[in-house]
Amino acid sequence: MANLQTLLTQMEEHHSLFEDEIRKLPVPVCKAFVKNGKIAPSSFKITDHVLGTKDVQKVDEHFKKCAGNSGNKVLEAVQGEADHSGLRIAVLFSGGPAAGGHNVIVGIKKAIGSKNTLLGTVAGPKGLLAGEFFEVTEDAANGIINTGGFDFLGSDRTKIKTDEQFAKVKKVVKEHKLDGIIVVGGDDSNTNAAVLAELLYDDGVKVIGVPKTIDGDLQIGSILPISFGYDTATKIYSEMVGNILQDTPSSRKYWHFIKLMGRSASHVALEVALQTKPALALISEEIYEKKMSLDQIVSNIANTISLRAASGINHGVILIPEGLIEFIPEMKDMITELNEVIAKYHEDLEELQLPEKKDFVYKQFSADSAKLMASLPGEIETMLLLERDSHGNLPVSQIPTENLMIQMVEDKLHMMQKHADDRHHLGLDEAQEAKFLKFKLSTLNHFFGYEGRCGAPTLFDAAYCLNLGLLAGSLVLDGHTCYIAAITELDKGGKALALPLTGLLNIERRHGADEMVIEKALVKINSPAFQFYEERRTIWARSDHFSSPGPRQLWGPTAHQLPYTVALNQGYGSLIFNLGDPHSLT
Amino acid sequence: MANLQTLLTQMEEHHSLFEDEIRKLPVPVCKAFVKNGKIAPSSFKITDHVLGTKDVQKVDEHFKKCAGNSGNKVLEAVQGEADHSGLRIAVLFSGGPAAGGHNVIVGIKKAIGSKNTLLGTVAGPKGLLAGEFFEVTEDAANGIINTGGFDFLGSDRTKIKTDEQFAKVKKVVKEHKLDGIIVVGGDDSNTNAAVLAELLYDDGVKVIGVPKTIDGDLQIGSILPISFGYDTATKIYSEMVGNILQDTPSSRKYWHFIKLMGRSASHVALEVALQTKPALALISEEIYEKKMSLDQIVSNIANTISLRAASGINHGVILIPEGLIEFIPEMKDMITELNEVIAKYHEDLEELQLPEKKDFVYKQFSADSAKLMASLPGEIETMLLLERDSHGNLPVSQIPTENLMIQMVEDKLHMMQKHADDRHHLGLDEAQEAKFLKFKLSTLNHFFGYEGRCGAPTLFDAAYCLNLGLLAGSLVLDGHTCYIAAITELDKGGKALALPLTGLLNIERRHGADEMVIEKALVKINSPAFQFYEERRTIWARSDHFSSPGPRQLWGPTAHQLPYTVALNQGYGSLIFNLGDPHSLT
Repeated sequence: MANLQTLLTQMEEHHSLFEDEIRKLPVPVCKAFVKNGKIAPSSFKITDHVLGTKDVQKVDEHFKKCAGNSGNKVLEAVQGEADHSGLRIAVLFSGGPAAGGHNVIVGIKKAIGSKNTLLGTVAGPKGLLAGEFFEVTEDAANGIINTGGFDFLGSDRTKIKTDEQFAKVKKVVKEHKLDGIIVVGGDDSNTNAAVLAELLYDDGVKVIGVPKTIDGDLQIGSILPISFGYDTATKIYSEMVGNILQDTPSSRKYWHFIKLMGRSASHVALEVALQTKPALALISEEIYEKKMSLDQIVSNIANTISLRAASGINHGVILIPEGLIEFIPEMKDMITELNEVIAKYHEDLEELQLPEKKDFVYKQFSADSAKLMASLPGEIETMLLLERDSHGNLPVSQIPTENLMIQMVEDKLHMMQKHADDRHHLGLDEAQEAKFLKFKLSTLNHFFGYEGRCGAPTLFDAAYCLNLGLLAGSLVLDGHTCYIAAITELDKGGKALALPLTGLLNIERRHGADEMVIEKALVKINSPAFQFYEERRTIWARSDHFSSPGPRQLWGPTAHQLPYTVALNQGYGSLIFNLGDPHSLT
Repeated sequence: MANLQTLLTQMEEHHSLFEDEIRKLPVPVCKAFVKNGKIAPSSFKITDHVLGTKDVQKVDEHFKKCAGNSGNKVLEAVQGEADHSGLRIAVLFSGGPAAGGHNVIVGIKKAIGSKNTLLGTVAGPKGLLAGEFFEVTEDAANGIINTGGFDFLGSDRTKIKTDEQFAKVKKVVKEHKLDGIIVVGGDDSNTNAAVLAELLYDDGVKVIGVPKTIDGDLQIGSILPISFGYDTATKIYSEMVGNILQDTPSSRKYWHFIKLMGRSASHVALEVALQTKPALALISEEIYEKKMSLDQIVSNIANTISLRAASGINHGVILIPEGLIEFIPEMKDMITELNEVIAKYHEDLEELQLPEKKDFVYKQFSADSAKLMASLPGEIETMLLLERDSHGNLPVSQIPTENLMIQMVEDKLHMMQKHADDRHHLGLDEAQEAKFLKFKLSTLNHFFGYEGRCGAPTLFDAAYCLNLGLLAGSLVLDGHTCYIAAITELDKGGKALALPLTGLLNIERRHGADEMVIEKALVKINSPAFQFYEERRTIWARSDHFSSPGPRQLWGPTAHQLPYTVALNQGYGSLIFNLGDPHSLT
């Protein structure tokens, strides 16, 4: 085989030039984990913070051992070499993948060193229940550093909550002589970590959580600025959206409707909007807070498109968060009514053809819901009536939100072009009106989601995760349990905190029962990040003010950037992160 | 406003940190354009090559002046400073955008210097016909260097071919005192450049083409290794595909069917396959050459999925080129028949309902076409019968190829799981069969297209385009016309050639008439790039051998990479490009 062919064959299985080079890339490490110039495990001291929720009494009672032990006090990592040996610590990924997960493992491995054993749990909580582990060697850790994906372990979404499962965990922990479990996951997985910590407290098994989710909805003010994976995902989406924005005035004919991953919160949409400056970004939380109707949302989009057309700009980009539908109050009400009608008249409905089914449902509906349903495009209406998940509920996530918006905006624009009354509010002069009347909407739609979960981590996520891993590993070595790892002061070298999980739990009504859970963090419309967007968006709507943030760089002058939303909400003075001095780890 | 808010506002309108830094990035320049360490216009000498097509006589007759002048001989740029002043040269973008276009403009501007005038043509050939130009200043050129998009000028797809249009061009050229026109475009646009060169020959107006297209189908052996924009687009798609590949063993449940832009050729799909190593990539040209049926293609995919399932791998990625359908011989035949039937019985068909329409069409069909049509999923069949473009033809590009594949593969797998005979050919042992029978296909589909046209250029496209611009500008200054700019020896400092456009034209039957056109370059199944893919693909199909090429880097150790297909087909020894020494241009 010729030289180049041989080289290309050697690049198979994670040995692209890029993958080989990022493994050698030095990663910044916070001072708390550096001693004599070397990475070392940390000790911990209690800080002044005590975390308590509104349901503090009930939570403390439920998590008597863990809460009693921690006193809900925050710990801070300080330099100091813990000298433990012979401990066996398992790490597992839970839920959807996020960039940087591999560096969490590397961090744990570095923290516990060669005198203790790190076990990788195969394919998430399911693997914990089945007792499927393998030893993570130094070589293996060096092979995955700075790479994307969760593939080193795999992941799944099993929730450990039945007594049978608890018994299994206890048995597995004993059989495998585990001293600690580190759970890398989102809000639900960290709630689960607290449950396991309490369950295993008397067995002396320490359970520590690490905050992961690309959605960014696991964050707590200044003590947990962001979950890992959010920076990489939003930088990947921002590049794509930036590229498409750059395309719009180049080809001058399309409006792109772009749906972005993120079921619950709109942190992703907000971050991408701040990085790229599109004509419009819908933020679900604002729509909910302001009780906006579907018609108002559609009108907003149609007005934005019309005003640009009137000034000769026939292109633009609209960002739509994946979870939008459930944040529109009237849609939520209608879907609830629909689910109730279908549950109640399930058998009658089954025998009816679509037109009769439609009539039947409309008769049961409130006037508001009937009106809203009738305003929807035919195929969406049909889908709402026909599609049910295994629980008999409407799979809201399958409603093609971006297509719904496109169709309703088309209809709205058509009316505005047809009837002078319907465009009167735009206040167009004669020349503008002529341009608007000639305009014809051409649309393209996109969904950016899976592309953003497993890319190679940004330098921020790489460093953040390595430090989260160092922190989580040190916590177990130092004998702590029921904490979530957190790094703060991301612009000043990083401060490593352990937050008591019991201090984060609240009682929420879920599936008709009270549950203690970590609350999903939504976009706050009084936050600096949202307010900055609100201040600029009218300007971005009127003409092209966009920027192209470009592909994320691992080398060079642009490699050290924080998410804009994090920098704004934390009150930092710049976008540049500082998590200590770079260390070569291989 | 606080510091950070002010900073973020300053980043609007193409001033992201990335955009500001890439403007300062030094770009490699070929030796031919460097004199005394400074960039300078080149002179040209005739090389030994003469380009002639099979239709050389007819073409030379049709392009009497240009072919007579050039003798179809290739020119090579050599160091030497042309001293011309007062020339007015227009540049225009034609067709879809591609990364690097802005650097072509910068290159032209640098080549012609401040003593001549560079005019930007607004929005493509349409702008040329309307005489819409603006002067490109030094400042403007410095503002767009290394940025993506065609937005500095805009583009469109107008073809200049009627006598009325020719007269308009002559008038505009005279009014604006143009001495040269540089056309940046694909195969059709460069054919158009030849036509304009001949038209304007006696007016002394020089017309030069620059090879652009992300599809990569404008390339000619070793004398035109690739069109610009291909490297950036394929690196963007490869990152996305690599990210998704990395996701598959992380979440362990999905098969992703990914459609990639590229209507005619599969160069994009092949390049992305080589960079990422998915389970399977369909290459249209191979399907055409081997006369594969739709059923064979579907079976290939189903077999790949089955064999992986049988060894416990329930995930993977399939790449599908956008233009696939038209390369499947039996589909092409059926569509031709269908178009004929509908054209012939247009009026009869209009009065029929869908079921009767279906019956009617089936009766007119050949047995083969009827069988094929019946094998298609219902909604595709309906679409084929109903959708027509303004010429009454089926809009083939609108057939959702990836959904068609998914549905047919699902059916095929269902049959294979149901009937032992249908899976016999897989040769599974008992344990493998048990795994295969438990397998359930979960799919996701994607289309990567518009994201790749306007990203910031890779360092290769940035350098390639700057040199193409320097070359095109120098050619006009030096008094040459009817050439296309080409850079060869991309691994050895770059050689700048001018290829006589008349030497590239062939006579093709299009829309029922003979036309002289530049042939679209398709993937050759005997090319080194395809053969390398063919050699490795069975291994990639069986288990995960993928690599993640990562986001394209503008700085650091991975910034200097060529497209794999180009390096292989040109017989280079490595992927590293060398286009001379870097120069700071601002």
